[in-house]
Amino acid sequence: MDFSIRAANVEDCKDIARMILELSVYEKLADHGKITQRDLEQDGFSKNPFFHGIIAEVPEQHKTKDGHLKIGYALYFFSYSTRKGRAIYMEDLYVMPEFRGKGIGKALMSKVAQLGLAAGCCLLNFTVLDWNKSALDFYSSRGCFDVTAEQGYHCMACDGEALQRLAQP
Amino acid sequence: MDFSIRAANVEDCKDIARMILELSVYEKLADHGKITQRDLEQDGFSKNPFFHGIIAEVPEQHKTKDGHLKIGYALYFFSYSTRKGRAIYMEDLYVMPEFRGKGIGKALMSKVAQLGLAAGCCLLNFTVLDWNKSALDFYSSRGCFDVTAEQGYHCMACDGEALQRLAQP
Repeated sequence: MDFSIRAANVEDCKDIARMILELSVYEKLADHGKITQRDLEQDGFSKNPFFHGIIAEVPEQHKTKDGHLKIGYALYFFSYSTRKGRAIYMEDLYVMPEFRGKGIGKALMSKVAQLGLAAGCCLLNFTVLDWNKSALDFYSSRGCFDVTAEQGYHCMACDGEALQRLAQP
Repeated sequence: MDFSIRAANVEDCKDIARMILELSVYEKLADHGKITQRDLEQDGFSKNPFFHGIIAEVPEQHKTKDGHLKIGYALYFFSYSTRKGRAIYMEDLYVMPEFRGKGIGKALMSKVAQLGLAAGCCLLNFTVLDWNKSALDFYSSRGCFDVTAEQGYHCMACDGEALQRLAQP
């Protein structure tokens, strides 16, 4: 199937917000729907953006029954590892279910890797849910490894009131 | 004990590289010593830095037997969560062993939280090694939670030749 991958722009935020919601429902996450089109516009497309994005698009003849042409996305930002150096972090990789198995996810991920290498990164990081076997298989087949399983790293977080308390001197 | 926390500058890279090495030896990591002073200078203190840093410093009378005044650091960068929004990622928090238990780690982490909140972040992320009980206890006591244990997220990575292959279209 014909598709193209391109850098996301502010006009894509409506579709990215829609797909973030689809992904979070798929991932059975409790807090889905929190991030709005407006959040994405402000956080990704103003001065000092918190993320960048790429979009997978299909031509008119392949549009979904709801009329969507933007059928996949990946968000990423640059990061750093004191073990490895410059790194790129992929926050979300998503392709709408009816467009899976056509190489679109591979093409999106390949583009993220290219963008990382072009910026001098030697490491790509992301997270995956341990029950998401198809995602784990996809990433393993692409040469990625499970840092949590192999080296014991756990993801930690602090938010809400705990973050406010943490900031108290 | 008297100490101060301040933003890191390019002159701190020698001490940050020294402490990164100390931390990676403590963490029993195989690839320690890869990141040099020069890497840190280029990656953190040029245009579009990949990280920012803060330094904990003690006054002259508390210097180490090797003459060090810079005795702790944290590195961080801004990131993004499509679940929560703007986020700050803490890559490394370290205090030299002889200065632990004096509130310096808490002060460094508190500063990272403040910097995050000031930038509109609602989430602080980091990783910890699952065998590092004292670190896990420290973070738990500060209201942080283990996203891997509670929600099943695994850290994934791709580097070296695998990353090069991934970038092939």
